[in-house]
Amino acid sequence: MVGQASRLPCVMDTGRRDACPTGQNLPSSMSRYDEFRAFRCEMNEKILARGTTTTRRFFNLDTRAYEPGALDAKTKELLGLSASMVLRCDDCIAYHVDQSIKAGASDEELFEVFDIALIVGGSIVIPHLRRAVEFSELCRARGGSD
Amino acid sequence: MVGQASRLPCVMDTGRRDACPTGQNLPSSMSRYDEFRAFRCEMNEKILARGTTTTRRFFNLDTRAYEPGALDAKTKELLGLSASMVLRCDDCIAYHVDQSIKAGASDEELFEVFDIALIVGGSIVIPHLRRAVEFSELCRARGGSD
Amino acid sequence: MVGQASRLPCVMDTGRRDACPTGQNLPSSMSRYDEFRAFRCEMNEKILARGTTTTRRFFNLDTRAYEPGALDAKTKELLGLSASMVLRCDDCIAYHVDQSIKAGASDEELFEVFDIALIVGGSIVIPHLRRAVEFSELCRARGGSD
Amino acid sequence: MVGQASRLPCVMDTGRRDACPTGQNLPSSMSRYDEFRAFRCEMNEKILARGTTTTRRFFNLDTRAYEPGALDAKTKELLGLSASMVLRCDDCIAYHVDQSIKAGASDEELFEVFDIALIVGGSIVIPHLRRAVEFSELCRARGGSD
Amino acid sequence: MVGQASRLPCVMDTGRRDACPTGQNLPSSMSRYDEFRAFRCEMNEKILARGTTTTRRFFNLDTRAYEPGALDAKTKELLGLSASMVLRCDDCIAYHVDQSIKAGASDEELFEVFDIALIVGGSIVIPHLRRAVEFSELCRARGGSD
Amino acid sequence: MVGQASRLPCVMDTGRRDACPTGQNLPSSMSRYDEFRAFRCEMNEKILARGTTTTRRFFNLDTRAYEPGALDAKTKELLGLSASMVLRCDDCIAYHVDQSIKAGASDEELFEVFDIALIVGGSIVIPHLRRAVEFSELCRARGGSD
Repeated sequence: MVGQASRLPCVMDTGRRDACPTGQNLPSSMSRYDEFRAFRCEMNEKILARGTTTTRRFFNLDTRAYEPGALDAKTKELLGLSASMVLRCDDCIAYHVDQSIKAGASDEELFEVFDIALIVGGSIVIPHLRRAVEFSELCRARGGSD
Repeated sequence: MVGQASRLPCVMDTGRRDACPTGQNLPSSMSRYDEFRAFRCEMNEKILARGTTTTRRFFNLDTRAYEPGALDAKTKELLGLSASMVLRCDDCIAYHVDQSIKAGASDEELFEVFDIALIVGGSIVIPHLRRAVEFSELCRARGGSD
Repeated sequence: MVGQASRLPCVMDTGRRDACPTGQNLPSSMSRYDEFRAFRCEMNEKILARGTTTTRRFFNLDTRAYEPGALDAKTKELLGLSASMVLRCDDCIAYHVDQSIKAGASDEELFEVFDIALIVGGSIVIPHLRRAVEFSELCRARGGSD
Repeated sequence: MVGQASRLPCVMDTGRRDACPTGQNLPSSMSRYDEFRAFRCEMNEKILARGTTTTRRFFNLDTRAYEPGALDAKTKELLGLSASMVLRCDDCIAYHVDQSIKAGASDEELFEVFDIALIVGGSIVIPHLRRAVEFSELCRARGGSD
Repeated sequence: MVGQASRLPCVMDTGRRDACPTGQNLPSSMSRYDEFRAFRCEMNEKILARGTTTTRRFFNLDTRAYEPGALDAKTKELLGLSASMVLRCDDCIAYHVDQSIKAGASDEELFEVFDIALIVGGSIVIPHLRRAVEFSELCRARGGSD
Repeated sequence: MVGQASRLPCVMDTGRRDACPTGQNLPSSMSRYDEFRAFRCEMNEKILARGTTTTRRFFNLDTRAYEPGALDAKTKELLGLSASMVLRCDDCIAYHVDQSIKAGASDEELFEVFDIALIVGGSIVIPHLRRAVEFSELCRARGGSD
């Protein structure tokens, strides 16, 4: 439905932040990236199915907050990334690294966001920075054919 | 463009983030804004005088992280603002609101940053949002001739 | 005991969480309680007027989450209180202490919530506990005629 | 030693929060649930054996805080759950989800606690919510024969 | 230097961490230090009087944890200080600064603790560092004859 | 004294905090300890290679902060450990447990640090305490011939 390029359905391709990957066979080297996305999708679907109206509205608001407005989409993803890094949530960091790259963020821009998170949040951010850098490589590798 | 009123040394005017206000007579309605800046300055000077080389280097790095690079100065201040809001530090929020406004951020842009901080950080951010909005009014009032 | 002054619209009285106190003259001993409510109201109104649709929807969701459902209103306020205490937000604690008391929470119940917050969150919670206990006294005093 | 009924010794069965599972062969589909409990037990025993009097007293207080008093056991577990969710500790969330279910909490009640944690703590709570929902399914599956 | 006024019971003098100042007339320059101690005392007494057995036991454990053992009292206060700084609790920081100074910590030692807190916790710690340095001056001034 | 096995470059041996283990064959029972160190090293090298001057300076400051000064190296590592425990960062805790042991900390001293972190930070620290105790055993086992 989303065409050739979207081998791995992604947020930007489909216009939905929470689109789930279908069961395509992916190269095993991609596994951590795809495992992350698959678990995220599966549980989001369960939560939206079993949660309350409040739960669903919150998830909806969470999507809307990153839509371009006075600030463009890339800047908003970077803002989500800096917030996620200082709060030290690996899944949130991975998500915003992925979204930032899809919105066109360069490595130089990502590292300047990392620097601000590191200075504001301190060395306690470093373990998350390590995983953010590792995850950004998975995103770049995966996005080679995007 | 900023005229007479801008005698109040500010970060952008002087090129130093920690320049201290001199003892000019300011309208009393400005007091909370100026009190904040005066205490900040006085203590920073003491800390830099009494601290170690490590303390001074950290303060220096803190300044450098917001200098324009791949990302411009306004974006970097907004990143510092979103990080400060989710970590819920009123002084840091006030500082980055002030800097963001000086770097040209509009109210629309500030509120989109506030939205992301609110969604990422939750309702626990609201009391800080109240004070951020109040402080932004003080900054705009102070900078009327900026 | 507070007589006329208790017209002060409160959450339970008006059915709205964010109703603002009108400018009635209140006994000075009530001031900290009322100052808290007045600033909260004034800024909430500004935020709702100047914020985005996302801001308004978030504030609306925040109200809905505490409406009775499978759990009753008092239990939900106590849940908001325990969350606010371990996150150490004085304004949020004050708000939920007030709401919990209005929903019928006894001092014994409040102290059992305080104990859980103390055990989960540690001694870092103690300064907030001090202010929570002080604020609960203001609420009880204020609500004498409620 | 714990007798027939306690196929898997659990908190409610034994009256002790920290009772350890004995080495029974469990269905492999249960493994994540049981692994969690087994590691928790093994390390708690080591900590209590090697720790100080202060350590042991803290662990004891932690147990006492959830005993029924002015508030019943289920409410107290839900309070521990909301506190653990906003502090974003997966192990603590898993523990209180398990205890809440054992104390009789329905899915509707759990989701209303999740909503409050989501609103208070923000989207940063979502990754923990995903794991909480997944873990609650393991608890329900495990408890089918309780 | 502080002469008579230093009768103010302090932790080290009385051997009790929570001894309350009696109502002596203190020089006004001391007020912020003494106000802090007076509010702390008044509320601790209320909490211990109105709280549960769990509350009282927790407060008791909190005192015991800092008693000398394998580590001496000064080291333990410095550990409490570094923990309080990265958790950004001004009252806790003030308390441990006071206790550390009473246990013999030099300014050089305090600043090395501040450095570690600054590096681990990041620039978000700086506003608390400012107040810690200011408070340490009040403690030194107050403790002139200690 | 430490014999062949200690070829594994460690912080104390090499005088550098971030020295990376070379690819020696290590006993499999050591794997979690060594995996931790290997990932840490690999990513630190990438970060230092790809990061900005600010990134590199921050990493450098992070090393300097723990060098002996008015406080000795062991005390500084214990301060880093208490800060890391209350901020609940497993990698940081593991790192400082390892460093503390290498700087000569006894188990009694470690447990007194754990107690302070537990009291200051609350039961939310317990899951990290479990992993800290487990990791300390790996460090002691690894360092048996140190």
